[in-house]
Formats: sequence, structure tokens, C-alpha cells
Amino acid sequence: MVRDLQALTDGIGGRPTGSPANFRAFDWALERFREAGVDARKEPFRMPGLWLERSARATVRGKDVTFTARVVALPFSTGTRAAGLTAPLVDAGKGTDADYAALGPKAKGAFVLIETEDLLDLDGLFREYTEAGHIERRAVGAGAAGLVYMSSRPGNTLARHNASLGLANRHPMMMMERDAAARALRLLRGGTPLTLTAMLDIQSGPAYQAHNVIGEIRGSARPDEIVVIGAHLDSWDLGTGALDNGANSVMVIDIARQIRRLALKPARTIRFALWNGEEQNLNGSFGYTLAHAAELDRHVMASSYDIGTGRITGFFTGGRAEIVPVLGRALAPVAGLGPFTHLNIPLVGTDNYDFMMQGIPNLVANQESANYGPNYHARSDEFGRADLRQLRLNAAIAAATTWGFATLDRSLPRQSARQLDSLVRNTDLADQMKSFNVYDAWVAGKRGLRP
Amino acid sequence: MVRDLQALTDGIGGRPTGSPANFRAFDWALERFREAGVDARKEPFRMPGLWLERSARATVRGKDVTFTARVVALPFSTGTRAAGLTAPLVDAGKGTDADYAALGPKAKGAFVLIETEDLLDLDGLFREYTEAGHIERRAVGAGAAGLVYMSSRPGNTLARHNASLGLANRHPMMMMERDAAARALRLLRGGTPLTLTAMLDIQSGPAYQAHNVIGEIRGSARPDEIVVIGAHLDSWDLGTGALDNGANSVMVIDIARQIRRLALKPARTIRFALWNGEEQNLNGSFGYTLAHAAELDRHVMASSYDIGTGRITGFFTGGRAEIVPVLGRALAPVAGLGPFTHLNIPLVGTDNYDFMMQGIPNLVANQESANYGPNYHARSDEFGRADLRQLRLNAAIAAATTWGFATLDRSLPRQSARQLDSLVRNTDLADQMKSFNVYDAWVAGKRGLRP
Repeated sequence: MVRDLQALTDGIGGRPTGSPANFRAFDWALERFREAGVDARKEPFRMPGLWLERSARATVRGKDVTFTARVVALPFSTGTRAAGLTAPLVDAGKGTDADYAALGPKAKGAFVLIETEDLLDLDGLFREYTEAGHIERRAVGAGAAGLVYMSSRPGNTLARHNASLGLANRHPMMMMERDAAARALRLLRGGTPLTLTAMLDIQSGPAYQAHNVIGEIRGSARPDEIVVIGAHLDSWDLGTGALDNGANSVMVIDIARQIRRLALKPARTIRFALWNGEEQNLNGSFGYTLAHAAELDRHVMASSYDIGTGRITGFFTGGRAEIVPVLGRALAPVAGLGPFTHLNIPLVGTDNYDFMMQGIPNLVANQESANYGPNYHARSDEFGRADLRQLRLNAAIAAATTWGFATLDRSLPRQSARQLDSLVRNTDLADQMKSFNVYDAWVAGKRGLRP
Repeated sequence: MVRDLQALTDGIGGRPTGSPANFRAFDWALERFREAGVDARKEPFRMPGLWLERSARATVRGKDVTFTARVVALPFSTGTRAAGLTAPLVDAGKGTDADYAALGPKAKGAFVLIETEDLLDLDGLFREYTEAGHIERRAVGAGAAGLVYMSSRPGNTLARHNASLGLANRHPMMMMERDAAARALRLLRGGTPLTLTAMLDIQSGPAYQAHNVIGEIRGSARPDEIVVIGAHLDSWDLGTGALDNGANSVMVIDIARQIRRLALKPARTIRFALWNGEEQNLNGSFGYTLAHAAELDRHVMASSYDIGTGRITGFFTGGRAEIVPVLGRALAPVAGLGPFTHLNIPLVGTDNYDFMMQGIPNLVANQESANYGPNYHARSDEFGRADLRQLRLNAAIAAATTWGFATLDRSLPRQSARQLDSLVRNTDLADQMKSFNVYDAWVAGKRGLRP
């Protein structure tokens, strides 16, 4: 498992969907399953558009001051002309309504610079997610030429924070290294007007076909009933995607390998899913639910692992209380690795989403923050950040959970469209869906089960 | 003082000797002295050659692996052709003799990659200095095409560690971000051969004239006797040189400003020196000792401040025991900011050096490491890293010290060439001089007082 993680991260590196490294990673994973004696296949799905950053540069200028500032394009940022886009750089505070009111007409046609807090943990990350959509909406509403986030990571570490509009975005959006953004803010607040010239070279393209890799160990008693354990193999490319989500991807491969090695025979079919396109609107798992629509009634469980290598403390059980006792029984063999506390709320943000919105029982492993938050989507998400010992313990927990549902004596029913509608109305699901740019598709009936 | 530091760092930014920002910084400093009513002048000196980095890029390649790695050229590195220099990248461990013995002929024609430890404090920095020369000498001895240090700063923070050969260096030398170098080392140690393509664009040129800025408050009783308080205003350019050495430069200006504001009349003349070319072989203060050769007998003290904004804990007194009691009396008014402990050893590495080698009593403020080490010459040496409160307290200590020597009732004698020779022979001065590439000039009688 450790050798796999090193090959995937150090060898293949960052692997955004649609990049050559992404193609290589999925071929590599297919080979790992086959090497382990596990049936595996590449399953195509449709990506609605290509988005890759080729390069990003920026220069800040004022009277008697010029400096280059490292930047990266945020996901789905538009590019600029090769000569760059030059516009005033203005201090938009934290990007609140009050901040824009204070800026007044100065936001129009300008790059708005948004100050951030240090991102220290998962709470900080979730705060960022919650705010990002609002911040973007206000920037667009104020007529800004583009949006510049101060990096929430220390010094000059950069990250691609997910933006909320997906391919529908029509503005250049970037993150600027914290030190340079702090310098720009001090100058602006000291009364020095600044301009920013941003050169964002973006490779974009039309819809194309990408692949998930699905390994399968067929059930001995109920082969047509399916338990999915999944992690996404795609990653952003500033770092090499060790925590997000190489570690859990190689864990999924390794659980398949161990089951095969021990010649264990699950009652139900287990599918080991390495999703693609997760970082770009969860498209791989969405594609799977479309391609396997006829089988979804027989999907007993879909679990996702996507929060690095911190200790698994329990699961998000998708707002379905009946899952909790079953899960408790599944975890009994690994009780010593607990305690486990389950959060019975629906979670948006990873590959459980389309299963959940199809009414299929779903789990997302909840994990201690460890170093996941600070390295999230960042240049620093590298092999050396993975806690290999805890990853091994997490593999035991994930294996027990998967095995529990694969051998369960009954099935949990699929939820109806009406039940899902109630879930959306009675929780904060809609807000989360907006943050991850999947709400409109739900409302339009294009994604998820609608009445 | 804080406003000055912000103008110097955020406004002017990094200011390597010979760069436009360097010229601007010295004009700015001259203006600050004059604004404060302090006589000041630009004094020319000779820089033996121009060295500036325009850009540095690198790509690591192996079978099925390619990644860009952020690099910077080390001071006085040679450049490469525009297409870059491609050579095998080999694991040279820590660059010890044993490491090269293990490498054998593989070092020849290769880029040798040197693993480093995390630089946490001043001790780590001094260790780096001590080792750098030996590491370079061995690399050259092994016939390496070039030298690549793993950055000793976290993640992807880069620094220009001083190299030991100065303009005599004939090899490309660079520092690679720690995460990328760690990845390369893991791949190499896992058996993946790698090559490195380095593109270093260096601006170099012949000897040229640069300037120090010297402010002066004339002595009332003994105007021909001179006390120098100095800090270097030049800096490297990855960060904006707040700790090294913007903070102490603005402190020197501010002490002059306060003496003038309070209309204090020192008995001796005080010269407030903002040295240039310090980062490039201590050339500004060297130039001063050449230009002011006729006055050196009447230089009572030359003090240097160059270790950021950590608390001043005492002084390096240059191996002259007779300085210690005088210093103790000078510090009496600020005893509450102590305790102070003086280290009676000769220190090489900043602008006391040429005064010391001319036999002139000299001091270097010793300071708590605080965050000086980790940010040394690094991208992270930014305004926000300065401890402004401690800087103000340090200014009181430096002012008391300067005033003490400016009003001292007697002079300390200038040392003879014979005494200096004995100092070199009886301390580790020679080793330090080699580390800072000033030993040969001393032996050749080109720098310092020789019999």
C-alpha cells in the first residue's frame, strides 16, 4: 500500500481529470487490481468540459513599487490574453456585503482582493467552502474584473480552492501567495493604489470521455447485490495528491488485494471504485450512477473515503438513522480502533453525493483533521504528509465496514424521491449543494432522483 | 521607524546590490537622513562584479515521471544556456566525503543533490555556513556538473544560501524546494534514475561602482574621533529583506533621527552607516575602510546590527577583552532590557569584518534567534515577520551602546598587524573567513592589515 502510494504520488504526481497524468493513473490502478487477481475494468463517463491550468503569473504595480506575486488559477477560472489582464487591485476585505458597500464603484472593473484567515483545520476548510460561493457571487455582482483570494496557507504555499460556479464561471479567479497578498493589502491600506496584471493560461475544451476504474469481487450468495467502497483517484496538481486522495485510493486497492489474498468470499458483490472527475464536480461517481441506473435498486451501500490519513472517528450516515446500528455491528471487530461516533447528517463534497441523491444508503468516513485541512488542494499535499501508520489502521476500519455490509442479513431500502425531497428541505443539504455547484442540476431534474 | 520599514520592504522590496531596487533604496535612505536633519552622503565603492538572478526553472525527469521543481540560483551561480543544462540528478546524501565515495564515478558530470536538515534556528544556520564550503569543494572535486541543495526551509519556501566561492565560482548551483527535492530523493532511492534540466538566467557583469549611505552627527568635543553604527541596507530578493536587514537599517536611521530630535551633542562624531554589498562579500564596508584609510586610527568603535529583530542579548566583542567593561558601562542605562552576555570571540559574516581586520574595536549585536534563522535569505523574509516591539527595545540598546562609545573618556587602541595575525592563529577566525570567502584576500594582503 505504501509502495502504491509512493508510485502514485512521487511517480505519477498530480493528476487532474483530463491530464496525461490522470490517464496514466487510471491505467496504473487497473494494473494494480489485475496484479492482485481482482477483476477490474475501466468504465467511461462524460466530463462536461476540460479545465487544466498551463501556467499562472501575476505582477503587482504601483507608483515606485513593482513585484511579482505567485498565483494559481482557481478551478474553472477563465484564462487571460497572453499579454495578461491589467486592472486596479482593490482591497475587498473579507468579501462581505459590507466590504463591497465600502468599496462602492471602485470594485467595478477591478481585481478584488479577498483577505483570508489561516486555514488550520477541517473547520476552517468547511468555513471556506461555505463562504466561497457568496464571495464569488458578490464579486460578480459588483462588476469585478476578477477575483483574487489571499492564500489561506502560510507563506507562499498555494492551493486550488474549489470555486462554486464550475464551467459556468466567466471570470478570472486566482489565489495569491499569502505573503504577497499581505504586502499588497498593506500597501493598499497605506494609500498606495495598485494594479494587477494577471496572466492565466488555461487549457479548456468541450465535453470528453474519461474513465473510472472499478474492481470487483463477486458475491458468493447474493452476487446481484452490490456494496461499493470508493475513493477518488484524480487530484489537483499543485502537489501530488497524497492526502486528497491518493492515500484512500491505494487503501481501496489494498482492501481488494487483501480480500483476494485471504480468499475471503463476501456474500454480496463488492465493487472497489476509483472515481475520476471528483475534483471537477463529482462527475465520475455521477457517471457511474447514470451507467448503472438499472442496478441502483440493488446497491446496498456506497461508502467514500476522502479526508486524508487522519484517524477515522466514525461516519457521516447521510441522514438515515437506520444505518447507524448496522454500522455499529460492522465495526465491532475493530472496536479497539475506536471509539466511533457517527454523524447522522447528509454530506455533500465527495463521491457519496450522487448515491445519496439516488436514495442509496451511503457513508463518508469522518476523520480527524490531522494535516488534511492545511494541505488541502495545496502544493504541500505530498507523500511525506501521509500518516502511513494511521492509514493502515484506517484500512482495517474500512475493510470491516465494507465486509459488514457485504455480509449483512438484510438490505436497507432505497429512499424515494419524496424522501429525498424531504431530506433536502429539512437539512442544510441545499446550502451544501449550492457550495458544490450541484444544486441547479438537482432542481432541474438532471441529477438525482426527482418525483 | 515602522513606517520606514514598511516603505523599505513593502514599497521597495528586495534590493540586491546592483539592482534598480538597490539604487532606489539608497536614494530613499539618503532622503530619510536629510528629512531628519542629519548630514548624509552617498559614498562610492567598487563592487568586483555584478550578480543578479533573472529567473530559475527546473524540470526533473525519469521513466514515466516528469515534474517541475521550483529552484533558485545560489549566489554567484553560473547561468545555463537558455535551453537549460540537462544532466543526471544523483543522490549525494549530505555531501560528505563518504557520500561521494559511495557515489563514485556517478557524480562526474551529474547534478549532485544534497539533502539538508530543517533549518530551525541560528545554530542550524551557522552549521549550514560551516558546511557549505566543504560541500561545494567536494562537488567540484568529484567533477559534478552542478550542485543542487534541498531547501532547508519547509515545503516550497526557497532561500539564497550564501555560497562560498563568490565570483570565482564556475558551476551552476541552486536550491530546490524541499518537497520537490524530497520527492526526487525518494524516487532515486527507490531505484528510478532521474535527470535534471536546469534553466538559470543570471545577469552578470564586470566591476562597477555602488554606494553606501553615511549619515553623520558631528562630535562636539572630539569631532575627529569616530564611532560607527551600521547595518546593511542591501538584501537578497526572494523576500523583501525585513529581518535581513531592513529592520536594523531603519533602526540606524531612527537612532540618528532621535539624537537630532533631542538635540543631543555627542562628544565624538557618530557615523550612521547603511552598508551596501554586504550580501555579496561584505564589499560596502570593505570599501569604506579603503576610502577612509587615513581616518581609521581615529575610529573608536564600529558596531554592526544584522540578526533580525530578536532581543539583543549582548555583543560579539571581536576577541578583545578590554572592550567588555567599557561596553558594560555603556549598557548601564538600559540594564533593564538585559541581561546582557558578551561573547569575546571574533565573528565573521557581517560588516564588522573589515574593521576587525583593520584592528578597529568592533561589535556585532548578538540576538535571540527568534525567527531569524528560518527566514534567513528566504522568500519568507517579509515585513510581517518583524517583531516591531522588540525592534524598538533593541533601538534603545543600540542607542545606549553608540552613545557610550561616543562619550567614552578614553580610546581603545587600534590593534597591530601582529596582534591580528595572532587573533587569526589563536581562534577559529581562519575557518570562518574561508566560509565567507574572505580568507584568500587576507592571505594575499589585499584585505585587512598585514605586516
